[in-house]
Amino acid sequence: MFNIGVIGYGYWGPNVVRNFSCVEGVKIVSLCDRDRRALQRFKKVYPHVETFTDHRDITTSRDIDAVAIVTPVSTHFELARSALENGKHIFVEKPFTVKVSEAESLIELAGKKKLKIMVDHTFLFTGAVRKIKELVGNNILGRLYYYDSMRVNLGLFQHDVNVIWDLLPHDLSIMDYLIQDKPSAISATGVKHFDRGLEDTAYIIAHFNDNLIAHFNINWLSPVKVRTVLIGGEKKMLAWNDLETDEKIKIYDKGVKVKSKEGVYKLLVEYRTGDMWSPRVDHTEALALETRYFIDCILHKKTPINDGFAGLRIVKMLEAADKSLKNKGALVRL
Amino acid sequence: MFNIGVIGYGYWGPNVVRNFSCVEGVKIVSLCDRDRRALQRFKKVYPHVETFTDHRDITTSRDIDAVAIVTPVSTHFELARSALENGKHIFVEKPFTVKVSEAESLIELAGKKKLKIMVDHTFLFTGAVRKIKELVGNNILGRLYYYDSMRVNLGLFQHDVNVIWDLLPHDLSIMDYLIQDKPSAISATGVKHFDRGLEDTAYIIAHFNDNLIAHFNINWLSPVKVRTVLIGGEKKMLAWNDLETDEKIKIYDKGVKVKSKEGVYKLLVEYRTGDMWSPRVDHTEALALETRYFIDCILHKKTPINDGFAGLRIVKMLEAADKSLKNKGALVRL
Amino acid sequence: MFNIGVIGYGYWGPNVVRNFSCVEGVKIVSLCDRDRRALQRFKKVYPHVETFTDHRDITTSRDIDAVAIVTPVSTHFELARSALENGKHIFVEKPFTVKVSEAESLIELAGKKKLKIMVDHTFLFTGAVRKIKELVGNNILGRLYYYDSMRVNLGLFQHDVNVIWDLLPHDLSIMDYLIQDKPSAISATGVKHFDRGLEDTAYIIAHFNDNLIAHFNINWLSPVKVRTVLIGGEKKMLAWNDLETDEKIKIYDKGVKVKSKEGVYKLLVEYRTGDMWSPRVDHTEALALETRYFIDCILHKKTPINDGFAGLRIVKMLEAADKSLKNKGALVRL
Amino acid sequence: MFNIGVIGYGYWGPNVVRNFSCVEGVKIVSLCDRDRRALQRFKKVYPHVETFTDHRDITTSRDIDAVAIVTPVSTHFELARSALENGKHIFVEKPFTVKVSEAESLIELAGKKKLKIMVDHTFLFTGAVRKIKELVGNNILGRLYYYDSMRVNLGLFQHDVNVIWDLLPHDLSIMDYLIQDKPSAISATGVKHFDRGLEDTAYIIAHFNDNLIAHFNINWLSPVKVRTVLIGGEKKMLAWNDLETDEKIKIYDKGVKVKSKEGVYKLLVEYRTGDMWSPRVDHTEALALETRYFIDCILHKKTPINDGFAGLRIVKMLEAADKSLKNKGALVRL
Repeated sequence: MFNIGVIGYGYWGPNVVRNFSCVEGVKIVSLCDRDRRALQRFKKVYPHVETFTDHRDITTSRDIDAVAIVTPVSTHFELARSALENGKHIFVEKPFTVKVSEAESLIELAGKKKLKIMVDHTFLFTGAVRKIKELVGNNILGRLYYYDSMRVNLGLFQHDVNVIWDLLPHDLSIMDYLIQDKPSAISATGVKHFDRGLEDTAYIIAHFNDNLIAHFNINWLSPVKVRTVLIGGEKKMLAWNDLETDEKIKIYDKGVKVKSKEGVYKLLVEYRTGDMWSPRVDHTEALALETRYFIDCILHKKTPINDGFAGLRIVKMLEAADKSLKNKGALVRL
Repeated sequence: MFNIGVIGYGYWGPNVVRNFSCVEGVKIVSLCDRDRRALQRFKKVYPHVETFTDHRDITTSRDIDAVAIVTPVSTHFELARSALENGKHIFVEKPFTVKVSEAESLIELAGKKKLKIMVDHTFLFTGAVRKIKELVGNNILGRLYYYDSMRVNLGLFQHDVNVIWDLLPHDLSIMDYLIQDKPSAISATGVKHFDRGLEDTAYIIAHFNDNLIAHFNINWLSPVKVRTVLIGGEKKMLAWNDLETDEKIKIYDKGVKVKSKEGVYKLLVEYRTGDMWSPRVDHTEALALETRYFIDCILHKKTPINDGFAGLRIVKMLEAADKSLKNKGALVRL
Repeated sequence: MFNIGVIGYGYWGPNVVRNFSCVEGVKIVSLCDRDRRALQRFKKVYPHVETFTDHRDITTSRDIDAVAIVTPVSTHFELARSALENGKHIFVEKPFTVKVSEAESLIELAGKKKLKIMVDHTFLFTGAVRKIKELVGNNILGRLYYYDSMRVNLGLFQHDVNVIWDLLPHDLSIMDYLIQDKPSAISATGVKHFDRGLEDTAYIIAHFNDNLIAHFNINWLSPVKVRTVLIGGEKKMLAWNDLETDEKIKIYDKGVKVKSKEGVYKLLVEYRTGDMWSPRVDHTEALALETRYFIDCILHKKTPINDGFAGLRIVKMLEAADKSLKNKGALVRL
Repeated sequence: MFNIGVIGYGYWGPNVVRNFSCVEGVKIVSLCDRDRRALQRFKKVYPHVETFTDHRDITTSRDIDAVAIVTPVSTHFELARSALENGKHIFVEKPFTVKVSEAESLIELAGKKKLKIMVDHTFLFTGAVRKIKELVGNNILGRLYYYDSMRVNLGLFQHDVNVIWDLLPHDLSIMDYLIQDKPSAISATGVKHFDRGLEDTAYIIAHFNDNLIAHFNINWLSPVKVRTVLIGGEKKMLAWNDLETDEKIKIYDKGVKVKSKEGVYKLLVEYRTGDMWSPRVDHTEALALETRYFIDCILHKKTPINDGFAGLRIVKMLEAADKSLKNKGALVRL
């Protein structure tokens, strides 16, 4: 039996607990939250599991093999370090850490202790992202031209971080997974409309070599919820609408290819327009797959696709975006 | 009878001709195009109208009161100057000119000659934009937070200008009309994927005072056509989808308002979520209204909403966006 | 404390159990299912509740105030009678019974014993139906012209009843609730495509006096899921799309009204076309409201909107539809 | 040069005239309409074509090879007979005639005179219907289970016929073209809400052998415009939404197939759910193809897919539907 302790039972914690509970051979043996009302809510559903208010009761426990850290990002580093130092594998809520240096330090520590880090980039385990990864991996789209992402809605306002640290980790982790090449620079522009000093609307661009560009439109003040990604490629183009139930992904047999140039002044551009195809997307709950995969990576000594280095890459981009934001959109090299 | 001469019978010319033909009291008396095949196409429908290949036969004609210039932007300045110098009012295809200095020079000339300039910002005459103008003008949305525009499709590639000069004039003219305040700076980022040196994908931000931000996503390489504008306001939010037939505009009774602060550490944000309302939008052809309005402004000595100064403001922003584009997104003051 | 016993833990039972559990002052004290695997699934979540395989352990128990019957329709009558005879209020899954005579017999029995019957017409408690009821009740639509309902999808095939008994109870209970007048006749046409003798596709018409017509399109073989109702009225028209998340109900300021007739041969029909308005719809789980309402009706001696008589009206229409179906669509008087 | 005379210049006439004008080798030599204002509208665009108010100036003219009859259906028979008797091929607006006997008489007359009849079932020439015909013809869908059509909108009320004679000819002609088998009976139910005695809402069912069913929902009183057809087949299912611009047709890799029966009491039904595929649909104007095809059929002695017999089949079904409508939905054998 593989024993897990969970720290944090706020918005996302119940989902992490529920999914780890269902993994074959796994037992949740203790939960910690500083808020006693959270512990009461937990106890109603899981009366037999021990609860604590001090995280050290979990990170230092002898009975625990791995710790799931589902707390605000500002606490990740301390909790993760304590868990790793005490020989626990860690499953950390996204974003990995507040600073690049923290992420690097945790990776180093886990390396020494031969422990696994998994950062909870849940979206990588959705049917849609797995299908798009398969398509991009098989070069169905051809050379990529642009990646255009929009994630806007009327956001809940109890945030301790701005819209970049809140919404962008999702999109950066998806882009990082789908696109082999890594961006060379980031620029970001945002505005705040309230007195708290937190940007609620932001536009971020990731610059790649070879004229690939990625763009992210994120916003807490939209009356309509939008979750779309457009990917333009030389051979085909793809539109992903995550709010669609049945036809999330559409692949268009459209591409733009420069044909043989006839002379210096004339340029022929050939459009191929044709059918559209919408592949079936698996509906298994992403977190169910991810929690099983965490145990599987530990037991079979595999490197997770969402390991500490993946978490670090996202934190690097977030740090760069935040820096650019503070500098009116100036380009920040990665 | 008010006599009009038209220069240019390419993609947009036939629409301008057809609409001016229908204006009460207006007669199209001559058409000029350098391409004889264009003249043939014209003659089939309008066998009784004189045609020329030299624009001077129109700009210097004694029988003509106004000239409609529906040619590539690079030719606008010369044609418009010739027409104004010969005492003709002008109706000029958007964008007004290639350079700010040209627009200024034409405005000065028209002023001296007491002639009208109208720049063909067609969108201002659509039912949707007129309705949104009415709503914003009546302060239905409250103080504006952001203006977010997306105009992407698989574009025709016979361009002599990049995507900014091709698509952005539409959106800038709409924003300029709807928003009283004027932006203080522009930044733009774009990429080119083909050998012609023309950007096909670009993201532009217009920065206003008071934390209002406008953002434009334009792209010739999208498999799906998107034409949306989101406007977030303190009192209400608006979504405009121009591809919808019947429900183009939706106004959401949602807003975000900071309520009285209770203490330093606590911030209450009140969400009002409620009904949605979609006003009927008039379907009269925009160009029909605009051509009538042109004659009306001349006959009754009114200043058009889309006069030379409006055209100049758009050209200023386009010039700034192009400059920023060449400087990797650096902020360009207006 | 109000004690409830539940019979049946198949597809819908878990929802009934979960919702009754959450009602203030209510306790689920026992559950019965003939399938031991169902009892095991139940025990995982509710380890402290007694389970049985014989329904008499519930219907005759002294500790139980009310029985929820969540079993196949063919068993409803026997279970309900046993519960009522033993002095229990009953909450019965829809449709109420297989036969009109059974429904009438249960109503009579409950009347004698002064017990409540509630038939689980869940849809009546959705935000959408409650809002439409409010609109129709306030005569916002004016005199009704037609009610047009479509409920199609790729249905699960483990049915013991045809598509009429499976899908139509939903729609008939909604129509019965929304429309004050009751239909005078029913006709139904359907086909079966497989060897089991169960119709999988059917079209049903309910005829009212005064030229109101209701039409139902139900189908287990549709590749796309559709859940729409159109209601045409003299003053306004309403479209309800239950698959929309945010804009389920749209009210159109369109109506058709015959204006004063001018002579025998001329008929003026006035169209009012105008705005569309989409009211906010409450998202509270319908079954949560319904289970609370059941207890409330018992404790405060109120007559439920979905009482035995409502259940009976639906069974009458189902019986008539089935009879018409067997007679090639012949009209069956109610 | 092939000379055509056109009778009728109301709503549809201008489209017929414009399209015949564009056919290579065809000349419109005369137009007739009893309404002088219609002739004036015509003269503005076609000043050189002769106009008449008496149809005999066309049907008896020596210069005319074919007559296009674009008048109300009640006049079709007389005009068509006159044209055929004078040796003209005819192109007749749908529906072909008011009565079956009229259609049969015209077919006989054309046969004797060796003249072509084409009934203007325009929809058969749309890209969507041509694509669906190709798919059904290639047995992509497998054996057909049902054909479900919906055509509703806020209709114009200047009708001299009920909604069945107004809207249903479109759908019957499409079904007749797509489905090889012919229905054996029709039933129809409809209601009228205004004093004119014309049904505005109707539901029609066409019964086929082998459990295929076709259903039509037509309505002039709908606030929303709907134009959909669902076709369920053993191998695949198809959804056609004619209001979609780019993805009119979707083919679902879903079907229901009864697998080998294992015993009498057990029935295995296999669902195949998979990808969706949306083929490109040609956007050429249907009437452009149809008018060219008319000339082609005459010159090359081909039998049109929309010949007099096709027109007759539709009239037979309309007559049957009307009869059923008058008999409260009673089945009418064909």
